[in-house]
Amino acid sequence: MIVSALLTSVGINFGLCVLFFALYSILRKQPVNYNIYVPRLVAEDKSRTSYFNIGRLLPTPEWMGRAWKPTEDEILSSSGLDAVVFMRIITFSLKVFTLAGIIGVFILLPVNCTGDQLQDINFANLTSNSLDVFTISNVNNGSKRLWIHFCAVYVLTIFICYLLYYEYKYISSKRIAYFDSSKPQPHQFTILVHSIPVSAGGSISNNVQSFFMEYHPTTYLSHLVVQKTYIFSNLAMRKEVQAAFVSFKSRYGAAMALHLQQSDDPTEWVTEQAPEPHDVYWPFFSSSFMLKWILNLVVIVAYVLLTILFFIPVLIVQGLNNLSQLEVLFPFLTSILKITFVSQVVTGYLPNLLLQLFLKMTPPVMKFLSSIQGFISHSEIMRSACMKVLVLMVWNIFFANVFSGSVLNQLSFVLEPKNYPARLAVAVPAQASFFIAYVVTSGWASTSSELFRLIPLIWSLLRKPFSEPTTDEFEAPSFSYHWDIPRVLFFCLLGIIYFFLAPLILPFLLVYFCLGYIIYRNQFINVYAPKYETGGKYWPIVHNSIIFSLVLMHALAVGIFTLKRLSLASSLMFPLPVMTLLFNAYCRKRFLPIFTAFSAQRLIKKDIDDSSDPELMAEFFSKLVIAYQEPASSPLDHSTNCDSETYPLLSSTQF
Amino acid sequence: MIVSALLTSVGINFGLCVLFFALYSILRKQPVNYNIYVPRLVAEDKSRTSYFNIGRLLPTPEWMGRAWKPTEDEILSSSGLDAVVFMRIITFSLKVFTLAGIIGVFILLPVNCTGDQLQDINFANLTSNSLDVFTISNVNNGSKRLWIHFCAVYVLTIFICYLLYYEYKYISSKRIAYFDSSKPQPHQFTILVHSIPVSAGGSISNNVQSFFMEYHPTTYLSHLVVQKTYIFSNLAMRKEVQAAFVSFKSRYGAAMALHLQQSDDPTEWVTEQAPEPHDVYWPFFSSSFMLKWILNLVVIVAYVLLTILFFIPVLIVQGLNNLSQLEVLFPFLTSILKITFVSQVVTGYLPNLLLQLFLKMTPPVMKFLSSIQGFISHSEIMRSACMKVLVLMVWNIFFANVFSGSVLNQLSFVLEPKNYPARLAVAVPAQASFFIAYVVTSGWASTSSELFRLIPLIWSLLRKPFSEPTTDEFEAPSFSYHWDIPRVLFFCLLGIIYFFLAPLILPFLLVYFCLGYIIYRNQFINVYAPKYETGGKYWPIVHNSIIFSLVLMHALAVGIFTLKRLSLASSLMFPLPVMTLLFNAYCRKRFLPIFTAFSAQRLIKKDIDDSSDPELMAEFFSKLVIAYQEPASSPLDHSTNCDSETYPLLSSTQF
Repeated sequence: MIVSALLTSVGINFGLCVLFFALYSILRKQPVNYNIYVPRLVAEDKSRTSYFNIGRLLPTPEWMGRAWKPTEDEILSSSGLDAVVFMRIITFSLKVFTLAGIIGVFILLPVNCTGDQLQDINFANLTSNSLDVFTISNVNNGSKRLWIHFCAVYVLTIFICYLLYYEYKYISSKRIAYFDSSKPQPHQFTILVHSIPVSAGGSISNNVQSFFMEYHPTTYLSHLVVQKTYIFSNLAMRKEVQAAFVSFKSRYGAAMALHLQQSDDPTEWVTEQAPEPHDVYWPFFSSSFMLKWILNLVVIVAYVLLTILFFIPVLIVQGLNNLSQLEVLFPFLTSILKITFVSQVVTGYLPNLLLQLFLKMTPPVMKFLSSIQGFISHSEIMRSACMKVLVLMVWNIFFANVFSGSVLNQLSFVLEPKNYPARLAVAVPAQASFFIAYVVTSGWASTSSELFRLIPLIWSLLRKPFSEPTTDEFEAPSFSYHWDIPRVLFFCLLGIIYFFLAPLILPFLLVYFCLGYIIYRNQFINVYAPKYETGGKYWPIVHNSIIFSLVLMHALAVGIFTLKRLSLASSLMFPLPVMTLLFNAYCRKRFLPIFTAFSAQRLIKKDIDDSSDPELMAEFFSKLVIAYQEPASSPLDHSTNCDSETYPLLSSTQF
Repeated sequence: MIVSALLTSVGINFGLCVLFFALYSILRKQPVNYNIYVPRLVAEDKSRTSYFNIGRLLPTPEWMGRAWKPTEDEILSSSGLDAVVFMRIITFSLKVFTLAGIIGVFILLPVNCTGDQLQDINFANLTSNSLDVFTISNVNNGSKRLWIHFCAVYVLTIFICYLLYYEYKYISSKRIAYFDSSKPQPHQFTILVHSIPVSAGGSISNNVQSFFMEYHPTTYLSHLVVQKTYIFSNLAMRKEVQAAFVSFKSRYGAAMALHLQQSDDPTEWVTEQAPEPHDVYWPFFSSSFMLKWILNLVVIVAYVLLTILFFIPVLIVQGLNNLSQLEVLFPFLTSILKITFVSQVVTGYLPNLLLQLFLKMTPPVMKFLSSIQGFISHSEIMRSACMKVLVLMVWNIFFANVFSGSVLNQLSFVLEPKNYPARLAVAVPAQASFFIAYVVTSGWASTSSELFRLIPLIWSLLRKPFSEPTTDEFEAPSFSYHWDIPRVLFFCLLGIIYFFLAPLILPFLLVYFCLGYIIYRNQFINVYAPKYETGGKYWPIVHNSIIFSLVLMHALAVGIFTLKRLSLASSLMFPLPVMTLLFNAYCRKRFLPIFTAFSAQRLIKKDIDDSSDPELMAEFFSKLVIAYQEPASSPLDHSTNCDSETYPLLSSTQF
């Protein structure tokens, strides 16, 4: 791709961004659109209807100032810890790519330009240069200047690891503080027990009661056995399922039942952390252990197949990248393609647009796959879908593009580990121009269209003639973490990989992250209400993804320096992935347990704090015993451990 | 190798076995040898000095009857659960190889013989046939008879998996029963806490006391801070180490502190199951978290290097296998090697003997490596050494022999997974004769020399003139699980791999396991006293090793059937390793947690049982508070939670 094609793409997308921003600032001020652009304020009855004035029809930038103002604590209290984590991904990326951009643009780019391995740069007519002139491929083989790139890789790795450690520590402390400052919540005192053995002639409810009365007499409070309604069966009488929500009088009591294996048979009396009551995903309680396991395997197989077969759209996209191939396939287009502008649009803009459309279909599919895997909470489904989307994106957009993804090619690549550096070193730099265009298209324009909410806008316009004004409570939408987090992480991966290969990508990435910062902040404040809170559990996914990107960059560096006949640099690169992985192992030991469960110290302290207000706790317990009833259903079979008058006064002797 | 060479080896080894058995039955009756042959009876003062009679000089077989008689429960009570697990490995192997032997010798062997891919079998002069005539290589390519081998693989896999499930279930229940029937033991009530944070001006002992009094007030009993003596330092005053043994009033209380993360920082207040007091391995308590981690890595690197470099002795051994190569290297031997008997000894016997000698050096080296890895108990060191020896044996004796182990060859094999079946299929059948000889030499003769205890005998003969009769308590030796378990498992691997390739190995293996059954039983009764009891934790190693052998057999089958031009059989083989690994995953879920820790149900029941005898418990607690003092040392700094009069009466309301 030549520079002018890139500039065309940049121009188109920049124009789209400006257009979206302007339209947004106009449309958001029209009261008829409040449901689309400020649904949070509508749901919380905070939207103000303003009188018509001409100012409403002019684009204004004051929404940016309002998005910039709130502090992190204000976002924490209004949108939850997950939103804070998401914004910190963006600020982390900004820090990383500011340094990377400075090193890349001011040090590496001139070094690349002044080489002549591919061709001499044409300063007179800059826009006619190929983008490859600005990549590492243009540095002469064996040149001593490659040591600059070597040092740059080391510097960036150390900086990123330092930032990762700092972020992990910060977010862990935020998570603990969030827990500390929370009011008593049902899911902190409750566990889910499944695979409850059924004894002949006994009911599940009695089983549960006798088990917990025997082994947890001082901390057990109540239980609720889950029941399943068979809609199509003539037994319109409900059937008990071998699962129950068991509540305890203290968080520590719940943790004890959760972390110790309860029964000699590890497949019976299996305990799990209960999700928040509104977060429960009901369809899978009646599955047995074997059925869940089989479904898990089916989903894994389906996921692998989907990931591999995604190469078909990718192949189509790649075909568009190659003009001559297109002319062969569609000879009637030859005359049109000869027009410079059309060819530039086709090579610079169209492939990425098509890729985006295909990609947009994946999050719902992944969410569906995750939802049949047997999870019991929506937040877990979202997290699993997030990981699936991330892996699919990385495999198909990065690797498949890089390896002309035929299925056999993909498999042969995976099965020959000793060839990884060499093959990556050949294929990755060649796709640099494609990915720069990808950042501009998918990054800039897509994020701006996120602001503009094009699809909900069109949907509401289509629906208006047919829908009646409802008196239902209007609910603000929730943020789709499983789609946006993988996208942001993918751009981080691109930036880290191409940092020393094609530093030209970095300014465009920085613009993307700046746009993302303002736009997502605005959306959190105005559009998305927190629905399913995981308490920051997305950060380990982010951390692992960045570590993977780093190690991939190191593997590339090894291959590139070998290709460029500087094998000493290649060998000296080996300690870096080793140190990175050791650092990752340390972080897993030091921080990851905090994201799985809270420590005994923390739980006991919180329980002691609660005991200072007995009436509040008594009221809380009276609500706890019915917190997990299925919504809009007949009363479940449940029993409590004690009468309402004897709710315990928590004191330290009780533990 | 031709049949006569094998018969020579069989003859030599059989003769050696008979010789060892005869010598054993004579020597064991001489009172001067009681220390070597019946040290258990000596240590327990049960040996009877008999008067001299001529019968003492004749070989008699009644020791075999005495070894056969005891039941499993008697072995359990006299030698511990680990000895029972070891004997069950042998009985498991006997069951497997009885069925395998029947299928192999009566069905597969005739099928192999009647083929003529390599050569027609010479019935007239059977001993002049090459051993390869009896392997699968002799079946014609593309023959339909290969389906018999295919079915044999399926049948054996299903049978082994069924047996594995049954054994895992049996040993799990034995482990739980062993725990149930045990008296109160210090290590059941104690945990080890390390990485204790030091606050300025406070002592570690006060830290521990205040932490456990605050968070475990009802269950905490006492603690003992570990101290380190610096022998060479002029501060002959001892230094406190950031580790302590903390004892609780109930097993459940100890389990609660063990399984929940205690502190917000997962690298502080790290809890671990305490070993039995005599099992503690003291040198590593003063290491910090980082030092232990670094040592761990150093050991792993050293182990990998050792394993790879072990090919040097293997190469020497292989050289002996090839007569012509020898004649080139040592031309002066040419005339000697022409003698048939000498050449048969050199090819059939000498290589294995040398290999055995090299192998005998590995367990002490592995035990040393494990002991610097940072473990805190001897039993853990033994288990880790067992796994190291097993992996080294499998890699170097099996794979390296099979791949003419040069280092580059080994690495290139590992790094090309898609070639595994093909390369295995070419190389493994060719080594069949070597391994049949290996079974006969290493299996038969080495196990018989275990009975004969040649090295302790020679050692005591050499030491006699110099040692004075001591009044020290004579201690019986303990069984070296880290050497014998890998050996038995290696023979299982050989049998499973060569089952359908060279069934001729199976009768020899069966003889080995029968010998082993009698010999090891005899040794457990008479020689080895139980020292470090793991409670059956060796069985998961056995299970994993058998699963690995099965999957290796499946990979071989895929390669062999492809080589033999029966690709349908190759493809139909693929479900088998998948099903085997799924079965393994199920077993890990169903049984492995029992080997890590006991369930809450079990601990609470045992605590309630104890509470029926308060005086016994009071006496036990008074011994518990000093149980972990270092032997022969000055009193450690310790403090107890309560005075001797207030040892709690355990009742159910205390939990």
